[in-house]
Amino acid sequence: MLTSQQVTGYDLGKGVTDHARKIGAIDQAYYALVDAVRGAELVILATPIGAMRSLLQNIAAVASPGSVVTDVAGTKMQVISWAEEYLPTSVSFVGGHPLVGKEVSDADSVNAALFQNRIYCLTPTKRTSSAALNKVTQLIEVLGARVRFLEPAEHDGQVAYVSHLPFVVSTVLMNTVAESPAWGDAVMLSESGLKNMTRLAKGSPEVYRDICLTNTEALSRCLSEYIRDLSTFRDQLVAHDTSVIQTFTGAQQFLEQWQAARPIDE
Amino acid sequence: MLTSQQVTGYDLGKGVTDHARKIGAIDQAYYALVDAVRGAELVILATPIGAMRSLLQNIAAVASPGSVVTDVAGTKMQVISWAEEYLPTSVSFVGGHPLVGKEVSDADSVNAALFQNRIYCLTPTKRTSSAALNKVTQLIEVLGARVRFLEPAEHDGQVAYVSHLPFVVSTVLMNTVAESPAWGDAVMLSESGLKNMTRLAKGSPEVYRDICLTNTEALSRCLSEYIRDLSTFRDQLVAHDTSVIQTFTGAQQFLEQWQAARPIDE
Repeated sequence: MLTSQQVTGYDLGKGVTDHARKIGAIDQAYYALVDAVRGAELVILATPIGAMRSLLQNIAAVASPGSVVTDVAGTKMQVISWAEEYLPTSVSFVGGHPLVGKEVSDADSVNAALFQNRIYCLTPTKRTSSAALNKVTQLIEVLGARVRFLEPAEHDGQVAYVSHLPFVVSTVLMNTVAESPAWGDAVMLSESGLKNMTRLAKGSPEVYRDICLTNTEALSRCLSEYIRDLSTFRDQLVAHDTSVIQTFTGAQQFLEQWQAARPIDE
Repeated sequence: MLTSQQVTGYDLGKGVTDHARKIGAIDQAYYALVDAVRGAELVILATPIGAMRSLLQNIAAVASPGSVVTDVAGTKMQVISWAEEYLPTSVSFVGGHPLVGKEVSDADSVNAALFQNRIYCLTPTKRTSSAALNKVTQLIEVLGARVRFLEPAEHDGQVAYVSHLPFVVSTVLMNTVAESPAWGDAVMLSESGLKNMTRLAKGSPEVYRDICLTNTEALSRCLSEYIRDLSTFRDQLVAHDTSVIQTFTGAQQFLEQWQAARPIDE
């Protein structure tokens, strides 16, 4: 059913919709948000979270009764709260988050196989209708992704550990190293290890600012735990404590267990 | 000249020397350290740093006058201090550290091109003779690597930032995430981002324990700076301060400058 629909695109940048039409990702482009949304059966919002509030306010007035709105943002609690505040009850909202694991998100990096075998989180609330949930689930199946249902708070708590914390760890590491007086010379000794550890810094600063600021509680808790563990390690180091090796053997075991449980494409 | 030499190998594990002979990395294997070292013109030590002390003590008695001893350890100050304490003055020691940037170091991951275009640090001291330095430099050129001369303390201070800190950041991150109560479920949401950030945990725990414990001063200073920067970020986050974005834009700029200055194979 869904595959026979007309797909309409709207973006602030005309270049983006032009490119999307060229590669066949959309059938037609509109240059006003209300035109794109009016009459749509399913509306998919993909913007930095900071833009979602006014987007939902603007959509509220024109979304068709019975239509479904979903999003692909990296945190769910704040977006859902705006959606339930602004959208009329005749319009269903389904919070969504596809885990596509790309560092950069531009039009060139997308293709039809992007979602293949990926996890696609959906975070329905008690206001979400079964019909709306079915519609979004059907789309996800067409994309070849695998649905995972989570409570919004549960989602945000889990991605804080596996996605937001690694991003902050990576970017702060890049800054600490590059701001050190040693960097001018040390850059010559840099290798793939540091490169791998800082590559997440390629991600969009705007997208991650909004993700972090809409997940402050969970993320600051993760950061505190991480800072605590780093401090323990540093104290052992200063004491010349040979048990620092337990940090490394432990990490190696966790890594092996994880890879056995969930092999991930790199 | 060097290419026509006989290459002799010695390892605690017979499997390692057998494999090395099979792939042509050595011409012959000895099963006693003293037999391997006796009469050698150039001795290359490649063990975790913790084993270096007794290795240097054992070599001291049999090394030929006029011979050169070098090593490939990741920190230089401690190894050089042992070498200058135990080796007779008739034997020259040249501290070395090839940056080959592999996560795992087993016999299967080596090949003749391993050192091609890589940086190879040498850390001569005022006791190092020009003849010894020339001999090791000549070997490095045969391997296709590029020599970089550094003071031992300078070397250890720089690799603390670009190599040891990233390793600790990676392994502690793996532990913090995997020890959290959320991990059992969050593992399903893990992606290539976390995978990249924790892959250094594949490195040998013994090798890194010894590296960390022979570079405690520089590494604990790096860790303190990193903990300070993470804490600043966390405090901004808790205050809902939108300037957290500066961490991300700053890191992106540093990453771009670095990649332009020194492109690195991954």
